[in-house]
Amino acid sequence: MVMNAVGREIPEKIASIELEPFRGAFATPPRGNTISKNIWSHNPGKKKLLSSISEAIDKSGLKSGMNISFHHHLRNGDYVVAMVLDEIAKKGIKDIGMRHSSVFAIHTEALIEHIKNGVVTSFEGNLNGPLGKYISENPCKEPVVIRTHGARTLDLERGNMHIDVAFLAASASDDSGNCNGVLGESKFGPMGFAIADSWFAERVVIITDNLQPYPCTPISIPEHRVNYVVNVDNIGDPKGIATGTMKITEDPVRLRIAQQVVDAMDAIGQLEDGFSFQAGAGGMSLAVVKFLHERMLEKGVVGSFAMGGITGQVVDMLHEGTLRKILDAQAFDIPAIDSLLNDPDHVEVSHYHFGNPHSRGCITHQQDACFLGATEVDVDFNVNVNTHSDGLLLHGSGGHPDAAAGSKVTFITTPITRKTNPIVRDSVTTVTTPGECVDVIATDQGITINPKRQDLWKLLAEFDPKPIEALRDMAYDITGAPEPLEYTDKFVGVIKFRDGTVTDVVREVKREG
Amino acid sequence: MVMNAVGREIPEKIASIELEPFRGAFATPPRGNTISKNIWSHNPGKKKLLSSISEAIDKSGLKSGMNISFHHHLRNGDYVVAMVLDEIAKKGIKDIGMRHSSVFAIHTEALIEHIKNGVVTSFEGNLNGPLGKYISENPCKEPVVIRTHGARTLDLERGNMHIDVAFLAASASDDSGNCNGVLGESKFGPMGFAIADSWFAERVVIITDNLQPYPCTPISIPEHRVNYVVNVDNIGDPKGIATGTMKITEDPVRLRIAQQVVDAMDAIGQLEDGFSFQAGAGGMSLAVVKFLHERMLEKGVVGSFAMGGITGQVVDMLHEGTLRKILDAQAFDIPAIDSLLNDPDHVEVSHYHFGNPHSRGCITHQQDACFLGATEVDVDFNVNVNTHSDGLLLHGSGGHPDAAAGSKVTFITTPITRKTNPIVRDSVTTVTTPGECVDVIATDQGITINPKRQDLWKLLAEFDPKPIEALRDMAYDITGAPEPLEYTDKFVGVIKFRDGTVTDVVREVKREG
Repeated sequence: MVMNAVGREIPEKIASIELEPFRGAFATPPRGNTISKNIWSHNPGKKKLLSSISEAIDKSGLKSGMNISFHHHLRNGDYVVAMVLDEIAKKGIKDIGMRHSSVFAIHTEALIEHIKNGVVTSFEGNLNGPLGKYISENPCKEPVVIRTHGARTLDLERGNMHIDVAFLAASASDDSGNCNGVLGESKFGPMGFAIADSWFAERVVIITDNLQPYPCTPISIPEHRVNYVVNVDNIGDPKGIATGTMKITEDPVRLRIAQQVVDAMDAIGQLEDGFSFQAGAGGMSLAVVKFLHERMLEKGVVGSFAMGGITGQVVDMLHEGTLRKILDAQAFDIPAIDSLLNDPDHVEVSHYHFGNPHSRGCITHQQDACFLGATEVDVDFNVNVNTHSDGLLLHGSGGHPDAAAGSKVTFITTPITRKTNPIVRDSVTTVTTPGECVDVIATDQGITINPKRQDLWKLLAEFDPKPIEALRDMAYDITGAPEPLEYTDKFVGVIKFRDGTVTDVVREVKREG
Repeated sequence: MVMNAVGREIPEKIASIELEPFRGAFATPPRGNTISKNIWSHNPGKKKLLSSISEAIDKSGLKSGMNISFHHHLRNGDYVVAMVLDEIAKKGIKDIGMRHSSVFAIHTEALIEHIKNGVVTSFEGNLNGPLGKYISENPCKEPVVIRTHGARTLDLERGNMHIDVAFLAASASDDSGNCNGVLGESKFGPMGFAIADSWFAERVVIITDNLQPYPCTPISIPEHRVNYVVNVDNIGDPKGIATGTMKITEDPVRLRIAQQVVDAMDAIGQLEDGFSFQAGAGGMSLAVVKFLHERMLEKGVVGSFAMGGITGQVVDMLHEGTLRKILDAQAFDIPAIDSLLNDPDHVEVSHYHFGNPHSRGCITHQQDACFLGATEVDVDFNVNVNTHSDGLLLHGSGGHPDAAAGSKVTFITTPITRKTNPIVRDSVTTVTTPGECVDVIATDQGITINPKRQDLWKLLAEFDPKPIEALRDMAYDITGAPEPLEYTDKFVGVIKFRDGTVTDVVREVKREG
């Protein structure tokens, strides 16, 4: 056990996974080299277009014990994960490692089935929804490795995570694999998550339901990254992209929190020409974008760019002139997808470009502000978005730590309590984003500011910021202090920061009876 | 010495360069692995924008004995090569290897100066213009390595050519290095050549004269590939892009050759919907495009794509509906540059995508036809575009072998004689493109067809094709047979085919007196 820089005890190894302790947001220098891959060729006249996923699995050389990946741009509307796993299972292939970017509720049934039948035995990737609960209660032999979006690309590049075969959905592709996500019935927007897979996986299979004549453009992934193409009936339902968290909040308390963030950005002096930001998903973040747009219109301010996770609201800013550019690695609704196709100033980027800290430069390092949610925050300003307060691993890290570490000012929006649960507390259940990356927390009971940002304490004096301990006390007054959780000696998951170090581990919660 | 598959004697090694003999257009399988590079980082707030090229040279760590690269998108209007070499010279750095994509007449003076002063001691890259003559008469210690555009990207990827620092001109860039060639006074079009450098060079410096607010879009090279940015007064003069070879021929004989190619494509049955082609530069190729466009309009045919080297004439085809898409790795004139910015169906691609044969797929392998020029052709259908008939190394290979090997039908357009020189001859001075890649040769004295293409002999019977020996005889009747050249035992250059094997070497010609 080693104590890391956010005070968590980290084992040196869990099963076969070696853990490097988190040392500080920018304290761990780049290490290692980029992976070296076999060189392939594809002579004229050779066909990449295969007749079925079954044939693609055969041709890709997939065998028991290998790792496969998927992107999650179709989110809760994705059919590809289940489709591929079912075919793998039919072939008797076992012990597959999932190295996906994220999975959602729609994947739960198939994944639990294939855990039970031994087809899938390990997970490295974000988990969302009931699968996390299942794995929390039935840990795999290897812990689930949760990485930030940036860390996923870094660990792929340096070979700390290996993908044998990437199965990548595309809403349009030609028979050579030039493909995108902006055309066709199943369009889902940019292919930001898939781009690193196309660079670093040993084999790349494009799965489309919309075969286009060569050359299919725009080209999100070019044919020279693609080994095979399969045309299926339906890769998914875009209606599943905009999940419940994509609706602007109507709760007056939450709207007030959002308004507070915009007021604070204004008071800090951020709302000037050239302002840039990243909005998260979720009702409060969407409300912040709405109020921000209104304020910028009012002030006649033109922002430089928004990075996303893009919604129609951000597109409105582009169309109405409060933003010059949109950098888009993930679309959250149909207006965002259509704008990516049609607006030249709305530009697709990869998640490597978005947030890889050990690259020659990433977008999050250029952001003035980001506003993000939290499941819990603690008096050290650490944020948890991975586990619920009952200790179950229920969410991925997404780009939360990437945005928080990179942005000049990171705002967290959260009520101080949810139902009977204190959100502001002594210690978060799991450290997703270290407190040093968090600057301002806006709550229903006012704002608090990280003590290391004395500059912001001064600029935001009129907001009457409270010490975070005061907000914790108010929360505990309402809900009582949280009961400490009891754990078994088993590990459910590992939470990797953007540089590949470990901010926390998730332990199995002791169950009653 | 080894005899290669086009009958040339190839040494196993010249100076430090190991030579692998050409075995056949698709006979040498991929070998080796992709290079592994150090992992870099760039923390928020750190500046990439440097005050001068001098500072960029210092920061890049450039030392005597290292290799540098440049792209040639500004062609005969480029100021960057001289600018950088002058600064390197001032610092006393010596023994630099040039690993450029190509150099032109405009670079001659600076390069000869820096050869003489010992700053530049080796060349791997295309040479155009008087520099080739100088080096032919004053060979460097290491032979000049001439690669096809595809081979350059392959040998960079597998580490057979190494770049320490790439100095890449951009007509627009932000201070983090997101850049393109389509905006600004010095716009030059796509950055097709530079993209491989940005992937594989140890350090990448963007040199721009048009600093844009972050984020600069469109993004041809993203910031995560860029170490430093320098803003200078002027990277070049776009008027130098469209050189003399970019004018459509007015010579009735050459126009007739061009017309013949279009007639032949039609007779073969290629001019159907979905037809694709690559046009070279040069007056006759431009004439082919013109006649092709007219014929396709007449027939109501819509082609799928043109790959280029793009000119305004190809853009006219897109605008007038005889082409669906343009894939563009290099712009040859201003209308092409502007179309790349404004037409969504005109898409930038890299030269890796264009022609790397040992990738997962390249564009040339999808082309129905290409029409290319020749300095000489021989009775084995081999083509020379590197040396003049006096044995001097005067031109690069460009994409000639890539297009010829990949396209279903390769047309060569050439008169049988030029001045007192027989162009069709027993044996080309230098084998650039092996005869097996060449299908039809259209000349002022009729067409000839490669005997291996009996299908084309039948389809083109009405053109009364002649055996190539007959064309050679006609040429020799006019000019006499060529005098054999006499060589010293020194080597001037090595001609590498697209797979990295050697089709020929260039020897020093014995001088009189």
